[in-house]
Amino acid sequence: MTFKRNKVPRAVVSRLPAYYRYLVNLEKAGLVRISSQQLGERMGLTASQIRQDINCFGGFGQQGYGYNVAELRGRIGAILGLTHKYRCIVVGAGNIGLAVSGYAAFRQIGFVVEALFDVRPQALGYTKGGLPVLSVEQLPQYLAENPIDVGVLAVPEGAAQPMCDLLVKGGVKAIWNFAPVDLSVPDGVTLNSVHLQDTLLVLSYYMTNPAKADERSE
Amino acid sequence: MTFKRNKVPRAVVSRLPAYYRYLVNLEKAGLVRISSQQLGERMGLTASQIRQDINCFGGFGQQGYGYNVAELRGRIGAILGLTHKYRCIVVGAGNIGLAVSGYAAFRQIGFVVEALFDVRPQALGYTKGGLPVLSVEQLPQYLAENPIDVGVLAVPEGAAQPMCDLLVKGGVKAIWNFAPVDLSVPDGVTLNSVHLQDTLLVLSYYMTNPAKADERSE
Repeated sequence: MTFKRNKVPRAVVSRLPAYYRYLVNLEKAGLVRISSQQLGERMGLTASQIRQDINCFGGFGQQGYGYNVAELRGRIGAILGLTHKYRCIVVGAGNIGLAVSGYAAFRQIGFVVEALFDVRPQALGYTKGGLPVLSVEQLPQYLAENPIDVGVLAVPEGAAQPMCDLLVKGGVKAIWNFAPVDLSVPDGVTLNSVHLQDTLLVLSYYMTNPAKADERSE
Repeated sequence: MTFKRNKVPRAVVSRLPAYYRYLVNLEKAGLVRISSQQLGERMGLTASQIRQDINCFGGFGQQGYGYNVAELRGRIGAILGLTHKYRCIVVGAGNIGLAVSGYAAFRQIGFVVEALFDVRPQALGYTKGGLPVLSVEQLPQYLAENPIDVGVLAVPEGAAQPMCDLLVKGGVKAIWNFAPVDLSVPDGVTLNSVHLQDTLLVLSYYMTNPAKADERSE
């Protein structure tokens, strides 16, 4: 998968998870193959857009046959890095942190939350799902003893950068941030921020400026 | 704001919330004006991209002066529909539903959650923030008595479409969906789905294919 490494436009990357999602569902529904036309109709993209996206990774459909659903799902999953397990921790055991840590679908695709961390004494203990909620004071030692791949930040705005720094210092190479703030990370650390308000404002825009209502994730 | 109604490309619309977010923060920090160059540097966009985006709404920067921060923030806020209050309800009083209903920032930009609904008897009562959690059985009558602008869906996958239909039947014209499923809504209803897994997979992609780590929301 490295032959085109780093050459995939961000716009295409941002569509890959949707491809993966649709293909998983098609596979579950028992579909063996699908044309770019049919896939496009379901996803709200044109057939040529679909072919162009998939060609970024070296095309592997067959003229007149379309794509093998399981193969394409597997291939896109591999491109997305879903070939092994990732050890994860969640900083912030509030509603968002608990939602992320309790969500079975993330575990199923390989993202396994091992523990949560919080500053509030009353939050410490165990989640309903049986995960330990530890004190943030224990975080540096925890990271020294447990190589963690992904740190989820689900803390208030003001705590996000310091907690991010703590994760990075402890060797965490990927941060999934839910705090409504733009964080700084050093080179070599991957960061993706979920700005929930942004998705609300896109909804608001289309409420105010009604175009064809699109089912399209941001 | 109607002069270019519906002609704004979705890619530009998807960047508007980030403009709004940056401008709010710049205004809070006391900045009076900013050049497209400076704004671009902060947002990770080129100056010409910034000018092009803003020109979609009729440019209103001044050559050699840049943009007045408060004016541009106000203008983009108006384009996003942040000029009045929206009455909201949340269906599903689990972690995501509670997070959304308890998040003060949404209220501050005009999205006011009035009640939550759930099917689980043990979830009924009041949230920590004092909002009523009512039975889903009461939803049709609630909607008949309370004109609701935005319905937030924070329910399991299987419940999402039936609950969406119930909201639409009750006159709700905008759905903010957190269930990991693509919903169908009739024309005239605006839908935006937040697929959290998609943002995790983008993170996963960049962990697997390390490019320059970008702080960019999806």
